[in-house]
Amino acid sequence: MLTQQTVNVAYDRAIDGRGLPAGLCYGGDYNPEQWPESVWQEDMALMRTAGVNLVTVGVFAWSSLQPRPDVFELDWLARVLDLLHAHGIGAVLATPTASPPPWFSRLHPDALPMTADGVRLIHGSRDTYCPSAPAYLAAARTICATLVARFRDHPALAMWHVHNEYGAVCHCPHSTAAFRTWLRDRYRTLDALNDAWTTAFWGQGYGDWDEIETPRATRYLANPGQDLDFRRFCSDALLAAYVQQRDLIRAATPDVPVTTNFVFGPWVPVDHARWAKEVDIVAIDDYPSEAGPGADDQTAFAGDLARGWARGRPWLLMESAPNLIHTPGRMHAKEPGRLAVHSLAHVARGSRGVMFFQWRQPRGGAERFHSAVVTHAGADTRVFREVVALGERLRTTVPAVPRHPTAIVFDAHSWWALQGPGLPTAVDYLAEVRAAHKALGAADVVFPGEPVDAYRTVVVPALFLLDDAYAEVLRRHVLRGGTLVVSYLSGVCDAYARVRLGGYPGALRDVLGIRVEEFQPLAAPVELGFPAAAVPETGMFWSERIHLRGAVAEATYLGGSWKGLPAITRHGRAWYLSTRLGPEAYARTMAHIVNTER
Amino acid sequence: MLTQQTVNVAYDRAIDGRGLPAGLCYGGDYNPEQWPESVWQEDMALMRTAGVNLVTVGVFAWSSLQPRPDVFELDWLARVLDLLHAHGIGAVLATPTASPPPWFSRLHPDALPMTADGVRLIHGSRDTYCPSAPAYLAAARTICATLVARFRDHPALAMWHVHNEYGAVCHCPHSTAAFRTWLRDRYRTLDALNDAWTTAFWGQGYGDWDEIETPRATRYLANPGQDLDFRRFCSDALLAAYVQQRDLIRAATPDVPVTTNFVFGPWVPVDHARWAKEVDIVAIDDYPSEAGPGADDQTAFAGDLARGWARGRPWLLMESAPNLIHTPGRMHAKEPGRLAVHSLAHVARGSRGVMFFQWRQPRGGAERFHSAVVTHAGADTRVFREVVALGERLRTTVPAVPRHPTAIVFDAHSWWALQGPGLPTAVDYLAEVRAAHKALGAADVVFPGEPVDAYRTVVVPALFLLDDAYAEVLRRHVLRGGTLVVSYLSGVCDAYARVRLGGYPGALRDVLGIRVEEFQPLAAPVELGFPAAAVPETGMFWSERIHLRGAVAEATYLGGSWKGLPAITRHGRAWYLSTRLGPEAYARTMAHIVNTER
Amino acid sequence: MLTQQTVNVAYDRAIDGRGLPAGLCYGGDYNPEQWPESVWQEDMALMRTAGVNLVTVGVFAWSSLQPRPDVFELDWLARVLDLLHAHGIGAVLATPTASPPPWFSRLHPDALPMTADGVRLIHGSRDTYCPSAPAYLAAARTICATLVARFRDHPALAMWHVHNEYGAVCHCPHSTAAFRTWLRDRYRTLDALNDAWTTAFWGQGYGDWDEIETPRATRYLANPGQDLDFRRFCSDALLAAYVQQRDLIRAATPDVPVTTNFVFGPWVPVDHARWAKEVDIVAIDDYPSEAGPGADDQTAFAGDLARGWARGRPWLLMESAPNLIHTPGRMHAKEPGRLAVHSLAHVARGSRGVMFFQWRQPRGGAERFHSAVVTHAGADTRVFREVVALGERLRTTVPAVPRHPTAIVFDAHSWWALQGPGLPTAVDYLAEVRAAHKALGAADVVFPGEPVDAYRTVVVPALFLLDDAYAEVLRRHVLRGGTLVVSYLSGVCDAYARVRLGGYPGALRDVLGIRVEEFQPLAAPVELGFPAAAVPETGMFWSERIHLRGAVAEATYLGGSWKGLPAITRHGRAWYLSTRLGPEAYARTMAHIVNTER
Repeated sequence: MLTQQTVNVAYDRAIDGRGLPAGLCYGGDYNPEQWPESVWQEDMALMRTAGVNLVTVGVFAWSSLQPRPDVFELDWLARVLDLLHAHGIGAVLATPTASPPPWFSRLHPDALPMTADGVRLIHGSRDTYCPSAPAYLAAARTICATLVARFRDHPALAMWHVHNEYGAVCHCPHSTAAFRTWLRDRYRTLDALNDAWTTAFWGQGYGDWDEIETPRATRYLANPGQDLDFRRFCSDALLAAYVQQRDLIRAATPDVPVTTNFVFGPWVPVDHARWAKEVDIVAIDDYPSEAGPGADDQTAFAGDLARGWARGRPWLLMESAPNLIHTPGRMHAKEPGRLAVHSLAHVARGSRGVMFFQWRQPRGGAERFHSAVVTHAGADTRVFREVVALGERLRTTVPAVPRHPTAIVFDAHSWWALQGPGLPTAVDYLAEVRAAHKALGAADVVFPGEPVDAYRTVVVPALFLLDDAYAEVLRRHVLRGGTLVVSYLSGVCDAYARVRLGGYPGALRDVLGIRVEEFQPLAAPVELGFPAAAVPETGMFWSERIHLRGAVAEATYLGGSWKGLPAITRHGRAWYLSTRLGPEAYARTMAHIVNTER
Repeated sequence: MLTQQTVNVAYDRAIDGRGLPAGLCYGGDYNPEQWPESVWQEDMALMRTAGVNLVTVGVFAWSSLQPRPDVFELDWLARVLDLLHAHGIGAVLATPTASPPPWFSRLHPDALPMTADGVRLIHGSRDTYCPSAPAYLAAARTICATLVARFRDHPALAMWHVHNEYGAVCHCPHSTAAFRTWLRDRYRTLDALNDAWTTAFWGQGYGDWDEIETPRATRYLANPGQDLDFRRFCSDALLAAYVQQRDLIRAATPDVPVTTNFVFGPWVPVDHARWAKEVDIVAIDDYPSEAGPGADDQTAFAGDLARGWARGRPWLLMESAPNLIHTPGRMHAKEPGRLAVHSLAHVARGSRGVMFFQWRQPRGGAERFHSAVVTHAGADTRVFREVVALGERLRTTVPAVPRHPTAIVFDAHSWWALQGPGLPTAVDYLAEVRAAHKALGAADVVFPGEPVDAYRTVVVPALFLLDDAYAEVLRRHVLRGGTLVVSYLSGVCDAYARVRLGGYPGALRDVLGIRVEEFQPLAAPVELGFPAAAVPETGMFWSERIHLRGAVAEATYLGGSWKGLPAITRHGRAWYLSTRLGPEAYARTMAHIVNTER
Repeated sequence: MLTQQTVNVAYDRAIDGRGLPAGLCYGGDYNPEQWPESVWQEDMALMRTAGVNLVTVGVFAWSSLQPRPDVFELDWLARVLDLLHAHGIGAVLATPTASPPPWFSRLHPDALPMTADGVRLIHGSRDTYCPSAPAYLAAARTICATLVARFRDHPALAMWHVHNEYGAVCHCPHSTAAFRTWLRDRYRTLDALNDAWTTAFWGQGYGDWDEIETPRATRYLANPGQDLDFRRFCSDALLAAYVQQRDLIRAATPDVPVTTNFVFGPWVPVDHARWAKEVDIVAIDDYPSEAGPGADDQTAFAGDLARGWARGRPWLLMESAPNLIHTPGRMHAKEPGRLAVHSLAHVARGSRGVMFFQWRQPRGGAERFHSAVVTHAGADTRVFREVVALGERLRTTVPAVPRHPTAIVFDAHSWWALQGPGLPTAVDYLAEVRAAHKALGAADVVFPGEPVDAYRTVVVPALFLLDDAYAEVLRRHVLRGGTLVVSYLSGVCDAYARVRLGGYPGALRDVLGIRVEEFQPLAAPVELGFPAAAVPETGMFWSERIHLRGAVAEATYLGGSWKGLPAITRHGRAWYLSTRLGPEAYARTMAHIVNTER
């Protein structure tokens, strides 16, 4: 039912041979430093067999590139790049700053990260750095500049890849000082901060910027404003660490795109919608957490979200798993064929290619059982044959970037706020958004603060934070004749996680023609009556007492606390869902709304 | 079946207009410092509509009252008190010491609390202080004295409310030093302490007071005597912090009652039965943790317990939730009408009134979704209408304090000991007591160390700690012709949590006419046979091998480890239950015992 | 079906009356320091009633023996030994070093252990020491030497018992320094270490030994090589602490055996197969964690394992529970008679006796509810009567040490590696080995690195680590005509937990005639078809895609990811199980294999 438009793809390989390959990229993370050079030749042969045309090198290689503070060993990487070039394979050259070497941690213990409990983490894993520590930032600049100086003119260089999966959180004194500076920049006055954080509650009024701490371990519930701002600060602190490297790179190689790979999950304090403006091409890592069809749904959403970050331009699937999925409690081998299904699903959603992590499964290290192209069993495997077959298929696949008439609003800040303290129940924001996306099948993804003029229908699931400006955007969308679908927990707060008064959903009450007086998180499902449905559906997770203020009831609670009261309402083209529908009912309802409003 | 007696109510408003209002108090926590003054007038109007005659002000307002070490801002509070007085509303004036301001934590990091793991907690929540830190105690005296000096003669002043929900635990060096002093006072000699704690086990013999630590993180099971005494110390350390404020207040305003609100839960190291002797009126906060009828049962017990703390005098429900209940995992909106049911249940059990937390639901802060009278949706709500209706009803309700012929023994120390290390299974003492109370429907609550002469029946559930003197009290009760009902886990230990030898239940073996040789915590229920019952009942959680030494079997195990052996015994008027009955069987059995013995 | 051979028993009481009693030992841990001397006489009488001929004294008595740094009080222990001797009871004299006294912790806070989070544990439990702290080692030598000097010639002395249940882990600076030294000794060069740990992954290459830390808290997955080596180091550090005491004792009393009691569990970083070479008789503590028949299975395995540690010589059950078993969530009273069943099961498996923990249940302390011979209820109990009856029975029981034609391979290092980071799913190695043992009913237990010539069948469950030499041992076993049964997860890694390439199960592919390409941990059971079975069996937990390379399929997957492919294979006499069979099917399969190959 949804129409798609094909657009042209940018970032083709430039005249001098640098930039991403024309057509679709195919390859993955390549870590030759984990193997003797004798293996490299076999790698090249297997890559050609598989149709690989692009690999990422250098991720996590800091201790191999700079084994001691004053010793740089770049020759091996030069040989790798030469070899790749000789085999017609482009290189995404990564800076290795996601994992400082042990010598760095020993020299600069103050640059090791600290948990909210005050535990200073040690190295021996990855991401063991404080993004605000001066010593770390300086060391990152040094290794970055060294790589740039050496390889800026290498013909294999297709793209720069800064760091890896930015997402580290730190509560050390450097972070605390940086957080205070960030807050000063944001609020200017303590009065403004005290107001935004409602510090009058529980007597938390600040009289000096230096009284403010990161949300470390405290007695009981933390301040939700402080918690939310800390996540915002983390995103910005990491972004600054990225930008310092990007700028250094851009100055040297303005013709080569620069990016970093986005990792996505509830633990990641990164506003990727904001970051996407700082990369030359959006690159994502995608690892579904479910087996079977659930993985397909997650893949579809991830692809649409990436295209959203890219604002409709092409993007790149930078990491994905050829086989094993980490489901809760165990890894799960993907069913035969699913590798292609997921890869092509991403290409169909705008990915400029398909990249795997990693090329060759390592013998040791923490991720020695992580999925790979060339596994412990070698290349005479189902997985490698599937990779080869996909490579052939991709050579004849025309990259395209779809566009949909329906958009879903995604907001990292609402996600963060819904992970904060003191909520009525545990809310899985991502599950809310994915459920709405699954009900639609496919959609564009948009972000608060940006226009929605291009869309016929805008779907707003659990948009907990909503500022006046974006409420106005949504209001105008309806006035303009657009359809709006809003779910519970939307519009409840302003941008500071302060509740909007007068009844939920705050600034959307007027456009939705309702006023929600109170809510009831559900321990068990309740039945819902739809006029057109023969049998009742069920509502789950949440329910609300809705007062109609212009809207009409499209479905009614048949049980529970609000028996006989509206569960789903419509006010012209503005719909409101006060409970979570099951997958089929949600899909039927979305189809009905989209069809009704066409 | 149980008779009630009505007694007169004390604490009526005194001649000069101060003291609690005559009749029933109605109101709740009022935090105008969270709102612009423009809202205050609306508050007054709504309070009058609702029949509010008493509000608590100043709780957690320290940072508003003393925004910097040397700056006091009390005028706003004076305006609030004036406004209240002008509207005929009394004020419970709270000292704000439960939440020191950020400046205090910055000036005195040594006064921040420390966890058992040695983590120094930061401010940014509430209760972030060490009750033994000299700087904290000094600052608390200062703000308390400042409030007293300013408002001692204010006509709105109805009662003083020190602090809020005392319950903070700390393991910092100040607490450690204070714990050592407390132990010295308690035991005088290390020999006495080593004997009480049985330090000969695992080689823990102390040779110097300064070797003793609070029960911080250790390798494996901690010493149960140390654990129990630390909780006792915490109660006393907090009590000393309360008393220093109370005495300061009493000296200035001897005519105004002083109290603090008791919070109740497994995490609270406060012996409220002891504390109750230090307040002018017992005040409790009551938040049931179950929805539906379970909340009613909890409410009934809470009210009877509060009256017990008050030793049969009136008490005050100082905090309760107009609507949302925090059940495990989610908030639950109370069913319409339950607000009145719970409130009147408390009044019927002796409460001098009904107070809510809080008056106006805040926009921000950690508890912005906590239940309130005036919610985010405003006053045009079901909840506010129920509050108004209840206010009307309370105006014609005559306060009364019931008295019952049956008493349940409650003991915070047994509760603590049953939370200690090395027990045969996880015991929920509160669940044991509540189950016995529910089986009775209503009862007085009494405490070890106090006489039980006034009662026909005394019920002793899971009284794990039992000293000789109180065992003698119970023995004389039976000799005097009283009925005694004892359940498993009672009388097992002395006051130092040392097991009484010779068979359980220790000092009660003779009066019960039994000797328990061994126990079997139950993974699954077992069947019990009652001679008079057609179908078997089930016993849960616990079972015991009982030897009759004069008692007769009133019920028998039909399965499990002790098949054919007694499960419930009677020795004259002394009954013993060695397993947990289900709610109906428990109630039937209690009714049978009470009727039999009448 | 399995044959047994009886062998003579060593360690009989020597000519001078010292050494273990002839016949079977009977008794347990005796802690008279927890009781007034008036109780001791009753103890002697009860011990004689029960037929006790050996008790362990002094465990955990450090603070009683050395109450202050410069004060030793050994007279009470001399009186105890005199009393025992006068009653014909031998003494296992323990050094008390498992629980340093409080004065030691106060004097030497640097010798208190540190957790992986950096929390310095306090005393007040047991095992609160760092085994690498010089102050601890010196203090242990002093108390040990003091005991030896005083009691070396005491006629009651039957055996020395060093420490108790070695198993403490520490991450403090002393441990860190010792770990570095241990690594230097093991690897000689950093290149070797970097290779063994695959530090090229995630950029962990070490350039200096002092950069290496113990595996303390870090950001994400730790290095599995580092994790494994740290457990090995812990085992060796503890062993060194044992050996220093043993050598000191041996020098003084070369005629008296020395041992320490092995405790067994996933948290214990001790390679008992290695340690067994350093004790004069293997002594174990055995506490099953299941009630009912599960406890019998655990007991059978524990006995066979102990005999394995003893390399077929007699060993001693040093601690066991007369009654209560700690099952998850609750203690469980053993069924009447089970005390004898478990005790005799151990004797039938080679134990030189039956010892309980502890003689008299203490009034206080963390384990006051731990099972005991003389309980809180006294000696007029079912348990004491069972102890007496068992004592009689043991007097006429002839000790014997069985030998089996089938051996199971057990490997602490594989266990540790399977507790490490980054595995495909959570693996319970002990459950794997126990399941194989239960399928056999009884077996000898052998250890990697040692010959298997004596066995007809060798069973290899989940032997995750397998070095070339031991792979060769297993290969030759098959060449020699022996039967080999290998299960999934075996042979996957080398001794450094690095995966063997080319397909699982690594170095056993040739002898098994298979190549495993990939695995699928199972969320739900799958059906398996056996040609000879009418109904399908189920496979659980794990499954694999097996390629036959000479082997034949003996069972096939009927569902799941590998439908139609082999599940169980046979290559001559070498069998491979790629999934976990249920208990009955496992037993049938093992019986079939053993019978087929006879």
